[in-house]
Amino acid sequence: MKFCSNCAAPVVKRVPPGDSLPRFVCDECGEIHYQNPRLVVGCIPELEGRLLLCRRAIEPRYGYWTLPAGFMENGETVAQGVLRETLEEAGARVELGAAFSMISVPRVNQVHLFFLARVIDMEVTPGDETLEIQLFEEGAVPWQDIAFRTVGMTLRCWFADRSAGRLGFHVEDIAQ
Amino acid sequence: MKFCSNCAAPVVKRVPPGDSLPRFVCDECGEIHYQNPRLVVGCIPELEGRLLLCRRAIEPRYGYWTLPAGFMENGETVAQGVLRETLEEAGARVELGAAFSMISVPRVNQVHLFFLARVIDMEVTPGDETLEIQLFEEGAVPWQDIAFRTVGMTLRCWFADRSAGRLGFHVEDIAQ
Repeated sequence: MKFCSNCAAPVVKRVPPGDSLPRFVCDECGEIHYQNPRLVVGCIPELEGRLLLCRRAIEPRYGYWTLPAGFMENGETVAQGVLRETLEEAGARVELGAAFSMISVPRVNQVHLFFLARVIDMEVTPGDETLEIQLFEEGAVPWQDIAFRTVGMTLRCWFADRSAGRLGFHVEDIAQ
Repeated sequence: MKFCSNCAAPVVKRVPPGDSLPRFVCDECGEIHYQNPRLVVGCIPELEGRLLLCRRAIEPRYGYWTLPAGFMENGETVAQGVLRETLEEAGARVELGAAFSMISVPRVNQVHLFFLARVIDMEVTPGDETLEIQLFEEGAVPWQDIAFRTVGMTLRCWFADRSAGRLGFHVEDIAQ
């Protein structure tokens, strides 16, 4: 951030009065521009014991496998965001279950949130962001080609919980 | 948002190529300015069966009672944000338990997240944002003077779960 989005004057970074952290501040109009973490919301779509994964058609991690997920948008609930992303990226309609994992990634100012989900129906062609979708048995999951650490962590928890016969809620961090 | 924070040119709101939602776009430098929901993180601090609430010294809702909570900051984990806000607003150090409630408030583009917590120690004087802190028995909770609906909803779930002998994880929406 270099300029004030309110008045176009240059911003400076300093601790405003009464605050404890440096912010982008506009001395021209007085606006303080806060920057906060973003939520990435997605799900773990399951169909008759198999797991739906998407192979990414965009960077970062083009060609790698991921769960359907993306940035939550203004004006929607967490659940609406999950359903939207799952339809956009996997071409799948799902019934959402419980929240399953919430993973903070402070290095990139994100929190990733995944819900349990049951696939209701699937399109033949997924969205533009996806090369292909595929249903995987546990033994066939492409562990070496998973796009993101939060997805790998979520999948490991999911298979472990499934083996143990109890699906929990997992709050984790990826520290660096 | 009126001007590009990258180059100070005026922005326009339209759907960028390949996107499905209108964004603030800079035609001068090409920057797309996404706006996403913010996370408010807090806890339900409990000490020997009593609940710690803070009376707000700031707007909105000056003078009303709330749980310690605030906007998650860049560079921190969800848990670090909760501990920071609890220390700032309640002057209390807590040991965090499980995540307890996650409430989407799409009208204001927020998601509120509360954790269970046990008070370890309390300062006599709370932070600048708080008029006073007080420990409440269930029967003494000032239900008519709770600052925010997400806090009221969380407290009702907490007392109900406690009566039932089982603390769950509650995913809710406040629709309007």
